[in-house]
Amino acid sequence: MSDEPILLTPGPLTTHPDTRRAMLRDWGSRDPAFIALTAEMRQRLLAVANGAASHVAVPVQGSGTFIVEAAIATLVAPGQKLLVLANGAYGERMVAIARRMGREVAALRWPEDRPVEPARVAAALRADPAVTHVALVHCETTTGILNPLAETAAVVAEAGRRFLLDAMSSFGALALDLGAVPVTAVLASSNKCLEGVPGIGFALVAKDALEGAEGNSPSTSLDLHAQWRGFEKDGQWRFTPPVQVVAALVEALRRLEAEGGPAARRARYQANFDTLQAGMRRLGFALYLDEAVQAPIIATFRMPADGSLAFRPFYEALAARGFLIYPGKLTQGESFRIGCIGAIGPEVFERLLRAVEAVLAAG
Amino acid sequence: MSDEPILLTPGPLTTHPDTRRAMLRDWGSRDPAFIALTAEMRQRLLAVANGAASHVAVPVQGSGTFIVEAAIATLVAPGQKLLVLANGAYGERMVAIARRMGREVAALRWPEDRPVEPARVAAALRADPAVTHVALVHCETTTGILNPLAETAAVVAEAGRRFLLDAMSSFGALALDLGAVPVTAVLASSNKCLEGVPGIGFALVAKDALEGAEGNSPSTSLDLHAQWRGFEKDGQWRFTPPVQVVAALVEALRRLEAEGGPAARRARYQANFDTLQAGMRRLGFALYLDEAVQAPIIATFRMPADGSLAFRPFYEALAARGFLIYPGKLTQGESFRIGCIGAIGPEVFERLLRAVEAVLAAG
Repeated sequence: MSDEPILLTPGPLTTHPDTRRAMLRDWGSRDPAFIALTAEMRQRLLAVANGAASHVAVPVQGSGTFIVEAAIATLVAPGQKLLVLANGAYGERMVAIARRMGREVAALRWPEDRPVEPARVAAALRADPAVTHVALVHCETTTGILNPLAETAAVVAEAGRRFLLDAMSSFGALALDLGAVPVTAVLASSNKCLEGVPGIGFALVAKDALEGAEGNSPSTSLDLHAQWRGFEKDGQWRFTPPVQVVAALVEALRRLEAEGGPAARRARYQANFDTLQAGMRRLGFALYLDEAVQAPIIATFRMPADGSLAFRPFYEALAARGFLIYPGKLTQGESFRIGCIGAIGPEVFERLLRAVEAVLAAG
Repeated sequence: MSDEPILLTPGPLTTHPDTRRAMLRDWGSRDPAFIALTAEMRQRLLAVANGAASHVAVPVQGSGTFIVEAAIATLVAPGQKLLVLANGAYGERMVAIARRMGREVAALRWPEDRPVEPARVAAALRADPAVTHVALVHCETTTGILNPLAETAAVVAEAGRRFLLDAMSSFGALALDLGAVPVTAVLASSNKCLEGVPGIGFALVAKDALEGAEGNSPSTSLDLHAQWRGFEKDGQWRFTPPVQVVAALVEALRRLEAEGGPAARRARYQANFDTLQAGMRRLGFALYLDEAVQAPIIATFRMPADGSLAFRPFYEALAARGFLIYPGKLTQGESFRIGCIGAIGPEVFERLLRAVEAVLAAG
């Protein structure tokens, strides 16, 4: 498969060949063997965040957006109010999702290059007692910025509100201990730092919050309570699961454990990021974010200010050399993104840097 | 892979090894190569039902239930009314989905062993002018019954109402010509008669109906209009697609064409069904349905009336011999189901029959 491109994207990303090979078999979705596979997946997802004592894992078919919508629909009851802490596109999407389904929602916003400030959150919660739930994006894929999880969770808990965490881009790599950090629901998907293939989102939900959530969701498909009850009843998915995606995720979760868990994975991603950043700086590309707020997940680089480089030809020239980078998503200014995640190591980034250098030289 | 079971289920089912091997590669979901793959998938889906002139293909991440919900949410506007023609669990699920999202919905019901009667539908539409949309399940997986598609579609069109067709278990095998049969939206999934793997549902929607549907859906994820606009804008999925499932579906669609299209596939499934039915009759198992209303997709058999056989040990004994059958879903009486679909031919059913015979002899 040496002719296949390396994905330097926020997911789908480059997976390990063993993870893909796990998809080579058919599974009966109501057969005991697949029920056991689903159970292993749910247990391993909880274990990644030390959630077995307090939370349950509820996977849902679809993308990350589907699980975010399912969590809002199920956990924020009609008449309750969601406050979204937003400093990027994924925070804004949560606002749009809640508004579309008719839930009361407000946003507290920061510029895209500034992390969420817990003190401002505390003040907002004091000012608006109607807010019942607060949502945060752990690592905003828009820029790659890391928001202060523990501090925000503490402020929300102190104010007696529920806390929803979009950990889409961080789960499996940035440490999360549900025994220590108060989070009502952690939302993520199969195809980012877990290094599975896309097709499943999942929520780790505090049991006490889920138990009271029956009938909240206006959606039959995106209903975490009903989905959970289905698993509890007979271990089966309510509706046809993407069986091969489940098999790939289980293989990916076993590989995560074998690698040494999230700490080891974060170290590898950090080495990827460090290699990338040092090399890109040498080649004249400035990181968009201040390093102090940069997660080692995805890096946003500014296009050269002199207009000497356009995204499309740059993308195509790197694609021709076997590397797929990602367009920028900044609301202001030209940029591009390079993912540091996936089943790849620093040597891949060394090769990427030589390709970038060659493209610049040829341009 | 001879140690893997044969799936005699309504899907996920036994796929061709080439279809599974199409999942061995990673794809950048915003890369031109994947955009081309998505376009091929959408074009091929339309072509299966001769829909290119009038309809558009809108795939959605998730299972068949997700696409049914997306279609109701998008096409039945608030204030409109859906009439579901129900003779099984999947019709009832549509009623539940519509009710849960707050849409006005009524059901016209038949016993599980009786097909929908177009004359009764015509009368119901005359009696209730508030009904704007009518929904039919083409082949009810509950029993395997075939409902009269062309006649029902004609009655609905004559009454000037929109027609939603759940073709989950029939699409790709039972002929459907959108140039001849008036259907507003055809709903199906990747993992049944198309012989792909599960993870995608899709709708073939009449362009004129979709154009007027902006903002109808209370769900951001399950919004066919927004999903369609996304594809029209840049060929990309709005939210992360299950890229390997897409690749498998494209391979499966190419194989469908190579086999000779739906007519050839139906003939193979019919041969599967005929082999199965004749052999099971010989072994003392009665088909639940009258043959005149039986689709060659999935067969429901009654358990012997003398109570000599229980489902669980029968399932396990057949599983030990490499065949996974499916539990019954009748509301009354013990039964089991055997799917006739998937990348398998009559010789597999000959082997199954020998296995059933051996299990009965051993019992």
